[in-house]
Amino acid sequence: MDPAALLALVRDELAPDLGDGVVTTDADVVAAHSRDEALFCPDDGAVALVRARTVADVQATMRFASRHAVPVVPQGARTGLSGGANAVPGCLLLSVASMTRVLDLDPGERTITVEPGVINADLKEAVAEHGLSYPPDPGSVAISSIGGNVATNAGGLCCVKYGVTRDYVRALQVVLADGTLTTIGARTAKGVAGLDVRSLFVGSEGTLGIIVSITLRLVPLVPQPLTAVATFADERAGATTVSAFMAAGAQPSMLESLDRTSLQMLNAYGDFGLDAHAGAMLLIQSDGAGSREAALAEVETFTRHAEAQGALEVAFSDDAADSEALVAARRLAQTAYEHYARSHGGGQLLDDVCVPREQLPIFYERLDRIRTATGLTIAAVAHAGDGNLHPSIFFSTTDPDEVARARRAFDEIMQVGLELGGTITGEHGVGHLKRGWLARELDEGNRGIHRAVKAALDPLGILNPGTMFADL
Amino acid sequence: MDPAALLALVRDELAPDLGDGVVTTDADVVAAHSRDEALFCPDDGAVALVRARTVADVQATMRFASRHAVPVVPQGARTGLSGGANAVPGCLLLSVASMTRVLDLDPGERTITVEPGVINADLKEAVAEHGLSYPPDPGSVAISSIGGNVATNAGGLCCVKYGVTRDYVRALQVVLADGTLTTIGARTAKGVAGLDVRSLFVGSEGTLGIIVSITLRLVPLVPQPLTAVATFADERAGATTVSAFMAAGAQPSMLESLDRTSLQMLNAYGDFGLDAHAGAMLLIQSDGAGSREAALAEVETFTRHAEAQGALEVAFSDDAADSEALVAARRLAQTAYEHYARSHGGGQLLDDVCVPREQLPIFYERLDRIRTATGLTIAAVAHAGDGNLHPSIFFSTTDPDEVARARRAFDEIMQVGLELGGTITGEHGVGHLKRGWLARELDEGNRGIHRAVKAALDPLGILNPGTMFADL
Repeated sequence: MDPAALLALVRDELAPDLGDGVVTTDADVVAAHSRDEALFCPDDGAVALVRARTVADVQATMRFASRHAVPVVPQGARTGLSGGANAVPGCLLLSVASMTRVLDLDPGERTITVEPGVINADLKEAVAEHGLSYPPDPGSVAISSIGGNVATNAGGLCCVKYGVTRDYVRALQVVLADGTLTTIGARTAKGVAGLDVRSLFVGSEGTLGIIVSITLRLVPLVPQPLTAVATFADERAGATTVSAFMAAGAQPSMLESLDRTSLQMLNAYGDFGLDAHAGAMLLIQSDGAGSREAALAEVETFTRHAEAQGALEVAFSDDAADSEALVAARRLAQTAYEHYARSHGGGQLLDDVCVPREQLPIFYERLDRIRTATGLTIAAVAHAGDGNLHPSIFFSTTDPDEVARARRAFDEIMQVGLELGGTITGEHGVGHLKRGWLARELDEGNRGIHRAVKAALDPLGILNPGTMFADL
Repeated sequence: MDPAALLALVRDELAPDLGDGVVTTDADVVAAHSRDEALFCPDDGAVALVRARTVADVQATMRFASRHAVPVVPQGARTGLSGGANAVPGCLLLSVASMTRVLDLDPGERTITVEPGVINADLKEAVAEHGLSYPPDPGSVAISSIGGNVATNAGGLCCVKYGVTRDYVRALQVVLADGTLTTIGARTAKGVAGLDVRSLFVGSEGTLGIIVSITLRLVPLVPQPLTAVATFADERAGATTVSAFMAAGAQPSMLESLDRTSLQMLNAYGDFGLDAHAGAMLLIQSDGAGSREAALAEVETFTRHAEAQGALEVAFSDDAADSEALVAARRLAQTAYEHYARSHGGGQLLDDVCVPREQLPIFYERLDRIRTATGLTIAAVAHAGDGNLHPSIFFSTTDPDEVARARRAFDEIMQVGLELGGTITGEHGVGHLKRGWLARELDEGNRGIHRAVKAALDPLGILNPGTMFADL
């Protein structure tokens, strides 16, 4: 539809149907809400922003959009890293960021039901008072919302032991493309009545419907872990330690790695006491499911595996403050990357692939080859225990050749992920950024299923076009 | 299609396309393969049995079926309890029970890939040699196949700590209605490339495609648990113990209950040393994630909760043989039921509902009312820690009035499940048996999603008609 015509319809038909201040057509405000944190994704052309406060607001917006075949881009906190919340021409932005109520907290059944705009960290805090934990902890834990976490099936550092967002979703309320409100999944611990439609919506990135309430399973308070850190001469030794340790039956609650370049950037950013000569660092936590004895045994096993791979140094701590200090460097890697990028051309392209753990040493070799071939600086942190790697490619945003090489490196990293038996995205999602690559990962049968399901649930194709289905 | 015409097509077209002995049209053999373990489900009219040995056999059968719009009923070990593998008029039975190869076992990545006919217990044994466990343990563990476990999202006794089958499925190969072979899901620990089509097939009961290979996540060998048993004067005291114990943050690896009638039937069947006067028994195991100290502490917490509810007796054991003896009675409940049924009219109708744990005491009250209203004997075991109950209704198969009352009791149990915020099926599935009830649990929006997905993936409606979609 012509943008001017849509604008008139929004003002005459949609805005009066919603309350005061729910619809914004101010161009600056709309533009400011037109994207998430990803680079290289278009974000032009949104006509209006709907800040839904209620389920009814969402339903009215979708009924309007269906009536006039208007594209709708669902948005939460817009902290995503794949352009999954970016505007497309002639679209409505539909934000649920203001829907932040806790609807129900049931410590007996260990569930919480929230609106999608609740921030992950706030939810964690709310349940901790009841002796409960919600484990999923994406890097964006302090700023990302549960609705977005569910829509992208967000991961994090704890996944190696505690799983991903999907493993905690019991039931959802979703508004479908035509405005229908439906409840999917079951509140109970078990339930097999019908298809698992709930899981279909988890990770669907706003392409099948708008999630308006979420019932999550909680677990008893996760125990304080022991923390250990090991440094190595190179990434291969660290990666081999990871695969050998895990193959021996380890169940760490965290197992992260930083490569040589990441350590250098952290050292340049601040004094974290990191070995300037190390080629890799592993950071492990073990909570022993509450048993200090079990946690200690696991950390000792880790130490043996690290030493067998020639670790430069292994140290551990059972003091909570010390442990947090050890983890701080890992958590600040992205900040250190930004610090580096500011003085090196400004560009940082963050990738996200997942490979079988045993392929980690080979992945680092292949990453070195990509560094050589593109001549670019690439740093990599990894949720190593899951084989989930986040290489960051640095480049000058004003040098078209560097930009082209950065994009090539980004693609080659996905190609290596696929060649090693892995996936193009472990936890960040497809969005706009990787839509062209999804078709390379899914076989024709699976692409057909995707297209059929999308056509069945969104026959007009109005839900988040331009993202994962655009090139299928 | 006219059965004779189909029979001719099977002989002339399908049988030559498959190898010798793959297709059987012998009426006795076909009839013997026309049902699972459920009562009250029709099983007439199958024309032929295809015993697939390869993926190609399955593809050829589905291509044939699509070409001629012939209904196909997928079958595994036929140990299901909901009529999900029962024949419909004019159908082909497509069994994958002979596809029993282990295709890959990767101890480093902790995964196993198997064909669907592998028996659950055989898989457990195969991975135990590598220090790994596959936890899901439906009651049928010794006789049910992994394909059927995945197709029904089977549960079991361990779920209260270790989750259900879905939580272990990483990737599937499925043959679609038109014979297309596709791989869905990812082999890696994490993966969000596209929709979670894998979970859509888990629990789809053969209505969306034929599962021909399964990649499962494994976990390190589950530790030996401590076992405790507590008896109570009535079911309410036991049920209240369960909800209070779990609300206090317990993480037992098993938490089962037997009601008064079950205890009486077990005592009539054999000498298990069970208190003949007890009104309920709880059986708990705790593995403390490998820490004996943590397991002991949890069992002691259980003891305190049981005593607070006036337990008649609480006893525990840390000897593996003693523990197994304590669990034996629970495992033999179904055998004791069959023993009772043989001398009481022959009929046993097994139900399966799941409610929030806190509703368990109310559920038992409502069950008493159903006993009174129908005048029938009803015994109930439960995976109490999950709120998943299995009431068994006993009746005379030759007394039409008792049969009618039994079916009424069966329905009323589901109604109570729904009224208490639960589901009509926790783990046995919908199949033919509960197809009429599925529409009562799912709201109109969800039914619409079900119909749309089914129409998109099986446009001819040939996959397991007569089951979960029949009344949606």
